[in-house]
Amino acid sequence: MARKKKDLSALYKVVRKITSFLSLDQVLRTLIEETTLLFNSEITSVMLLDEESNELVIEVAKGLAPRVVRNTRIKMGERISGWVAKHGKAILVKDVEKDPRFRKRSQEKYYTKSLISAPIKGRKGKVIGVVNVNNKKTRRPFTKNDLEFLQGVASQAAIAIENARLYENLHQAYLQTIRALATAIDTKDHYTYDHSEHVTKYAIAIAEELGISKREREEIKEACQLHDIGKIGIHDRILTKPGKLTEEEWKEIKLHPRKGADILEPLDFLSGVVELVREHHERYNGKGYPNGIKGQKITLGARVMAVADAFDAMTSERPYRGALSRREAIEELKKQSGSQFDPRVLKAFLEVLKKKPRWGIKTKISKG
Amino acid sequence: MARKKKDLSALYKVVRKITSFLSLDQVLRTLIEETTLLFNSEITSVMLLDEESNELVIEVAKGLAPRVVRNTRIKMGERISGWVAKHGKAILVKDVEKDPRFRKRSQEKYYTKSLISAPIKGRKGKVIGVVNVNNKKTRRPFTKNDLEFLQGVASQAAIAIENARLYENLHQAYLQTIRALATAIDTKDHYTYDHSEHVTKYAIAIAEELGISKREREEIKEACQLHDIGKIGIHDRILTKPGKLTEEEWKEIKLHPRKGADILEPLDFLSGVVELVREHHERYNGKGYPNGIKGQKITLGARVMAVADAFDAMTSERPYRGALSRREAIEELKKQSGSQFDPRVLKAFLEVLKKKPRWGIKTKISKG
Repeated sequence: MARKKKDLSALYKVVRKITSFLSLDQVLRTLIEETTLLFNSEITSVMLLDEESNELVIEVAKGLAPRVVRNTRIKMGERISGWVAKHGKAILVKDVEKDPRFRKRSQEKYYTKSLISAPIKGRKGKVIGVVNVNNKKTRRPFTKNDLEFLQGVASQAAIAIENARLYENLHQAYLQTIRALATAIDTKDHYTYDHSEHVTKYAIAIAEELGISKREREEIKEACQLHDIGKIGIHDRILTKPGKLTEEEWKEIKLHPRKGADILEPLDFLSGVVELVREHHERYNGKGYPNGIKGQKITLGARVMAVADAFDAMTSERPYRGALSRREAIEELKKQSGSQFDPRVLKAFLEVLKKKPRWGIKTKISKG
Repeated sequence: MARKKKDLSALYKVVRKITSFLSLDQVLRTLIEETTLLFNSEITSVMLLDEESNELVIEVAKGLAPRVVRNTRIKMGERISGWVAKHGKAILVKDVEKDPRFRKRSQEKYYTKSLISAPIKGRKGKVIGVVNVNNKKTRRPFTKNDLEFLQGVASQAAIAIENARLYENLHQAYLQTIRALATAIDTKDHYTYDHSEHVTKYAIAIAEELGISKREREEIKEACQLHDIGKIGIHDRILTKPGKLTEEEWKEIKLHPRKGADILEPLDFLSGVVELVREHHERYNGKGYPNGIKGQKITLGARVMAVADAFDAMTSERPYRGALSRREAIEELKKQSGSQFDPRVLKAFLEVLKKKPRWGIKTKISKG
């Protein structure tokens, strides 16, 4: 009885941990860690069903060689995991060698004596995976009680896995739509079709010159691709206006970094990117928008983007003026050192440009 | 001991139910139902913190008058719920009238004798709400064991609530972005700024004429607003081309219903809308796109949209032709009865147009 009580209390704790994530990766890693700990098992693995091939694939494991994890694919009905998945039933095998159901063990790639295995069943009762626990370190066989416990874990894992998949699917779809949107805005707003590509190229080169970490460079890259999505709300009439903008029109244009950040805000996997999009029009002297923040208060990546964005804008044709030459653009940038741009960032970009004598020299592309 | 075991097993079941939803509404309703059932309580309520006003608001309740539910707002620190929220601690009050902490009961709007109340603490340990359980129907006071149990429920409810909020935020943001996108495409693709508005107006009128249910009419409305979002991937050059399209260009245009459906697919709250967007260019005789489905196989709402969309297109100017008059457009629709359009739907639209003699007569709006 005490054992039962301990089990349920432990089960509750595992459940709490597993369900607290909406990232599939974190759900699975927590599941494997907690299960291994609870059963004190030599080998633990979680397999998920690959819907296309109808095969079980190991998603996470403990105690298995990476080669085995990579290469194991089990068809529905085959071997122990396949049996569990096909029948949707948990199984307890006290001694694999003595169990008539699974005696043919030539394909086993690892030593197994005693095991429990439970199906992971989704909302509609469909098996979406299997969790396998092999060999207690104590060498004792698993019990019926262990099996019930594992079923409890698997049943909750199913919910957590499905929730994470729903969340990640939505996240992915949103990101894809935003990317398509960014491309559409690029095409609409700029005379060159590849403004964002250029800005990305320049910004990454500056970031490398400054020794910015790989992780941050990736955020900068994503932010460059998406930096103008806030323009979705701005009328074409304003974006493509050939003459000077009125004060009202400028006010609307100036909303785009904030709107862009709002669009990205719920994409929590991109948290670093949101700041960069919000701040890419801030100026080193505090006279930028939307918040008028100053100097080091502006995220470094955003200071990098500001230089990259300005250089590409200068060297591109605009409805109201022709493109500056590379040399003219460089002079213009230098004039704004310390006011619009962070001098350190600008210096890094000038270094970059020395190594890239063709950057900023464009073949004119007519629009349409 | 048996009691404890029963508790944990019950707790596990509640937890399983609560966490299996990603809709806040469902999470809260499940929470209140299960809690009431488990404690056999007279009154149960879940309050969530309104971050702006820093007040607790009743989100769901059982056993309380709707007026009380609507009007109760409790400040942090005030009364019992406010105390629990402020201190982040669960509380057991065996007899409210005898408890020196809460003797001042003039503000109580309902009879309470014995109660338990537990804070709902989010991931970062911050209190996001409170769950209150008042009066066992058996009239016995609550026990320490009850309190522990409620804390277990509240702790898991916190996870479920936060997950649902994350999911719903993402969902909402995605929908907003898609709506902005639809407006942008409308503006870009059509000579009139309000193509989607017209299509919606026509389609809803047809749907009413046909006696289509309110729920389905709402899906049709949403689908009309979003029907062209798949055009996000199509080049402006093609969308705004003044001359005839080449075969290649047509192929690209014809992808837009499928692309639109793909964009909407992950928005599970909109499941009915996806079909409509996918099928709005199918034709009654099976010669439409993208799938060439036929007759009744095309969702009724999509057949409605096809008529509405065509009528607005005909009565609007196009880069390559002027607008047809209302009379000409009606003649054109009739010619396509049974081929492009469902005769029954068309008949309904003609009835509608009789009642609306101004529909289809447009004031020309020049673009730009």
